[in-house]
Amino acid sequence: MTVILPCEGSAYERKPVAAVHVINGYGKTSGTIQVQELGCLESPIALTNTLNVGRVQDALVGYVLQTEAARGREVRSVNCLVGETNDSEISDIAQRAVGAEQVLAAIRAAETDGPDFAEGDVGAGRGTICCDLKGGIGSASRVIRFGGQSYTIGALVQSNFGSLKNLMICGEPVGREIERTLRRRAAEAKRGAAGEASFSTPDVGSIMMVIGTDLPLSARQLGRVIRRAEVGLVRTGSFLGTGYVVIGFTNGNYLGEEPDGMGSGSGHAGSFRTIRLFPEERINEVFTPAAEAVEEAIYNSLCHAHPAVKRDGTPVHALSEFLAVGGGMTEMM
Amino acid sequence: MTVILPCEGSAYERKPVAAVHVINGYGKTSGTIQVQELGCLESPIALTNTLNVGRVQDALVGYVLQTEAARGREVRSVNCLVGETNDSEISDIAQRAVGAEQVLAAIRAAETDGPDFAEGDVGAGRGTICCDLKGGIGSASRVIRFGGQSYTIGALVQSNFGSLKNLMICGEPVGREIERTLRRRAAEAKRGAAGEASFSTPDVGSIMMVIGTDLPLSARQLGRVIRRAEVGLVRTGSFLGTGYVVIGFTNGNYLGEEPDGMGSGSGHAGSFRTIRLFPEERINEVFTPAAEAVEEAIYNSLCHAHPAVKRDGTPVHALSEFLAVGGGMTEMM
Amino acid sequence: MTVILPCEGSAYERKPVAAVHVINGYGKTSGTIQVQELGCLESPIALTNTLNVGRVQDALVGYVLQTEAARGREVRSVNCLVGETNDSEISDIAQRAVGAEQVLAAIRAAETDGPDFAEGDVGAGRGTICCDLKGGIGSASRVIRFGGQSYTIGALVQSNFGSLKNLMICGEPVGREIERTLRRRAAEAKRGAAGEASFSTPDVGSIMMVIGTDLPLSARQLGRVIRRAEVGLVRTGSFLGTGYVVIGFTNGNYLGEEPDGMGSGSGHAGSFRTIRLFPEERINEVFTPAAEAVEEAIYNSLCHAHPAVKRDGTPVHALSEFLAVGGGMTEMM
Amino acid sequence: MTVILPCEGSAYERKPVAAVHVINGYGKTSGTIQVQELGCLESPIALTNTLNVGRVQDALVGYVLQTEAARGREVRSVNCLVGETNDSEISDIAQRAVGAEQVLAAIRAAETDGPDFAEGDVGAGRGTICCDLKGGIGSASRVIRFGGQSYTIGALVQSNFGSLKNLMICGEPVGREIERTLRRRAAEAKRGAAGEASFSTPDVGSIMMVIGTDLPLSARQLGRVIRRAEVGLVRTGSFLGTGYVVIGFTNGNYLGEEPDGMGSGSGHAGSFRTIRLFPEERINEVFTPAAEAVEEAIYNSLCHAHPAVKRDGTPVHALSEFLAVGGGMTEMM
Repeated sequence: MTVILPCEGSAYERKPVAAVHVINGYGKTSGTIQVQELGCLESPIALTNTLNVGRVQDALVGYVLQTEAARGREVRSVNCLVGETNDSEISDIAQRAVGAEQVLAAIRAAETDGPDFAEGDVGAGRGTICCDLKGGIGSASRVIRFGGQSYTIGALVQSNFGSLKNLMICGEPVGREIERTLRRRAAEAKRGAAGEASFSTPDVGSIMMVIGTDLPLSARQLGRVIRRAEVGLVRTGSFLGTGYVVIGFTNGNYLGEEPDGMGSGSGHAGSFRTIRLFPEERINEVFTPAAEAVEEAIYNSLCHAHPAVKRDGTPVHALSEFLAVGGGMTEMM
Repeated sequence: MTVILPCEGSAYERKPVAAVHVINGYGKTSGTIQVQELGCLESPIALTNTLNVGRVQDALVGYVLQTEAARGREVRSVNCLVGETNDSEISDIAQRAVGAEQVLAAIRAAETDGPDFAEGDVGAGRGTICCDLKGGIGSASRVIRFGGQSYTIGALVQSNFGSLKNLMICGEPVGREIERTLRRRAAEAKRGAAGEASFSTPDVGSIMMVIGTDLPLSARQLGRVIRRAEVGLVRTGSFLGTGYVVIGFTNGNYLGEEPDGMGSGSGHAGSFRTIRLFPEERINEVFTPAAEAVEEAIYNSLCHAHPAVKRDGTPVHALSEFLAVGGGMTEMM
Repeated sequence: MTVILPCEGSAYERKPVAAVHVINGYGKTSGTIQVQELGCLESPIALTNTLNVGRVQDALVGYVLQTEAARGREVRSVNCLVGETNDSEISDIAQRAVGAEQVLAAIRAAETDGPDFAEGDVGAGRGTICCDLKGGIGSASRVIRFGGQSYTIGALVQSNFGSLKNLMICGEPVGREIERTLRRRAAEAKRGAAGEASFSTPDVGSIMMVIGTDLPLSARQLGRVIRRAEVGLVRTGSFLGTGYVVIGFTNGNYLGEEPDGMGSGSGHAGSFRTIRLFPEERINEVFTPAAEAVEEAIYNSLCHAHPAVKRDGTPVHALSEFLAVGGGMTEMM
Repeated sequence: MTVILPCEGSAYERKPVAAVHVINGYGKTSGTIQVQELGCLESPIALTNTLNVGRVQDALVGYVLQTEAARGREVRSVNCLVGETNDSEISDIAQRAVGAEQVLAAIRAAETDGPDFAEGDVGAGRGTICCDLKGGIGSASRVIRFGGQSYTIGALVQSNFGSLKNLMICGEPVGREIERTLRRRAAEAKRGAAGEASFSTPDVGSIMMVIGTDLPLSARQLGRVIRRAEVGLVRTGSFLGTGYVVIGFTNGNYLGEEPDGMGSGSGHAGSFRTIRLFPEERINEVFTPAAEAVEEAIYNSLCHAHPAVKRDGTPVHALSEFLAVGGGMTEMM
């Protein structure tokens, strides 16, 4: 599984502004309704596989209870956001192999690694398949300038969707090109003519997309921005198959307590909290970078993954296998 | 029809924070989707009858074009919020009698009268029926203290819902009491025994509820607060019949341009806008007054209305007819 | 914890039509987004406490995997709906005491007991507090006639909301009456005059409401019907405090496979599924019974509960303590 | 303006199943909330410009009153769906030039023309601009086979969105190609070198998309299908600018009265209505054709439009101008 820490310090105490957008709700992401009501997070975000959501949620709850207890605070309620995709073709999903130990290790790793984390077939991306190639975890970001300052819009995806024939990379029909290569190889192996066999499965499957930024946005504005994840996704060739969910958060506004010198809220009892909004009339300037970050994050999830084998013995190719062969791909990208 | 001016000065320019909550969408309120997307108003709110929505919307558009042109501003897009209930039992609804003239007159009246407006069977309340009695326009408000200051939560309703037998006033089953009185009267008229005839129609019909406040809330928070309109409504005996819509706005936060010394936004191009939020952990303190204001506004819509006659000749009683008779009501209230 | 079996046989295979309505999303109910997308259930529904959601969800997943495996079916994806309220004042919630064993026992009990289950402070109602009295599990139902047949609308609640001073029972201000009794007792205990001490806490807290019926409804219609849970709830004195969620399902329409002679769907690959809808123009006839069933279910959750003690030693009274004393209550009800 | 008749005969009486999906609610489409609540239409759908929504809605109301009166039926309530985009750069939008006469003429034309209607800069597409080219009305359809029968999924768009530099046609970056051509022409006109001047405006603007089908779907399923309009849209290069709304309806299921031998409902008082659902496990087979129909409809809106001139005198090119020149385009398409 994979963990995202939405802010420095305790998300439980700081409550970064957040939003959830469900593109296709045929999925099991938990923790969404409180984010939609209160517009903030209060724990790390975890990604795992479909049948592991309960165990990972429980592990996150345990983590928050424990870390807050260590700060002298008794937690009686906490909302944990857990997303998932279904990796049952590669993993033995019924095992529900991820428990408290793995979650704590992932959190510790996230604390240590910072932005230098591995991508591809790692963590919650170990068993995913994307456009009939090995998918996984990918990330990318864009920087925008506003009012003399720079702000980052980052995306992290767990890619497990799509059909090879539809895969587009930077506008190029890379998926069809790969299908052609696979057909040629199959023909060579059989010493026959290249057939019309399809290497594409139907466009079903899921993706989790997490967008984090430091741009000051309200929960409503963040909701508008993260809808554009859909744009990045469609540009890779998706027709929005099964469970597609976007989670967004910002470090530009907090709704919780205010540690000295951090964040924007005031946090004193009996006083209003102050948040900053991006000027609505210019918010489209944030839409495009958000979409682009998601698009690129999906490419990265494919590029960094290695070939794998399904539980039934079928190979799952990696995009990297095709980057050097056939002449076509390298120029394309 | 009835008009609500959501702020001093131009709503088009100031854009007070707003929210819409649809309890039962079997209605024709227009202008909702932009409020839900952008979290603000940009025109007066109008209430009218079901078939008049288009004409009144067009008249509001004309009003905004005209007033902004007078300020040297060409308006090419404006979102106007028009609510409605169906008063076809009393009014000849097919006439669509309300046009630009009536709308402009109502806006002028609102500008002049300020908070001293008439209630009951006036404006958009002329033809409405509420709990089988004459309904109409009603309003009420609550004041809450926070951080050493007072804030007002006001409600205005256009009541056209409910069934007499379900009508509760301040927890008393006033509707059943009135039914008994009506049965006794009918018996006396016929010089017979009091029968079991019902004076109640089924619980269908609609209500528009508008909640305005000066409490600093985000659009998300305002959305939470105005959901409590439903509480006030149910306390009067409703089972949420047909078209039930709540519109909320606040003068505590603006998203538009900033006239000198007004509102909270900064409004300079290239700078963030600042809004204040009510502390979420205390927001339930706002829920009860919001619900109570709606409840009382409904009572006021009934109390101030006069008896009427349906187009088919049937009388529509007014609540006031029963306040003095039979002994029961006066003590009750 | 408490388990509801939404149909005879396997919910995973039959997929009864379902809906979810979030009144106040400050809660952790999981499994909602798939129900909203696909309009059906595929597992039992479980109710537990706030921090136990993950464990109970995992246990439900395990149950479905196991029972379907026993029918020769490998399950790779299943959506489990788990609701919760926060019982941390009575229970040691951090323990997360409910695991697979308890869930399986509850399912077995539900299979055995059928409609004769215990109410009050049992199962997921063990630690709940409702209107400052001991709350818990309650249920009630209404029967409606349509087209010569009878249909049942049943409600089951896990009550953990509200403030004593607001509690209404069948329109009577029972909460205020009990407060008076408690004040008098406190005065007698101190041999002083009855004070003004409040025995009411603020109106926060949560409720889970489950509405099951055999009336043929589409998911959209069911969504309309379960919204009326709010009416029943408000009639007991709630102002919609914290986490309020309604789950609805019907045995009148199934979207899954079709065992011989059961349900309404056709289920053959390549053929349409057929569902029946209640005539929309009469659907308000279903609204009132749905609201009444929820209202009565809440009363039952209170009536069947026994006095308890909070973890800090404070007593939690049961409604039953007041039914015989003081003269007031018995006549009232 | 442009009118769509959603079924043969009276939509008011038949009530075809319908859905609305708001992608970006910065728009003024009216009539949405009732469709979302009741899952059906009851009038023609009209498209017009932003400030004309009220007048067109009123004209549709008048049309329904009149046609139903001619059938001996008094209409007291009707929900009319009116979509819009903002064509103020070409049209004098403040005029609100479309009234009852134009609406009735458009309905009569729709009745007469049937599927042979004009596309491009006609009707509600007269003043629209799409990707900095002349946009307008476009339509396209796909046929799918299911259970031995053919079903059509048709799309009609009013295109007024996007930025030239982003325009993609069938995967080709046609917009950038056209920008290059325009730069070269500008250079030739000035007898200078081709500069870097941009002919693209920011990606704002709107689109209305209407999807009609004869496939039996519930309102929930139709809602899922029409979300895929977003896919078609993004494939043309959109980043989801301003007001993006999709309206869907099907002639495969009706919720209203049943004329002899038409539709699927039963319509007898006191009996259930029967609708057919597409098997959910195969519904992704409908997603791709829905997306493709929208994509192609957008291309058609561009291909059939003629060059125009903005109110400020600036020319608006038509896509057709570039299809023959420069060598690039014709091969591309």
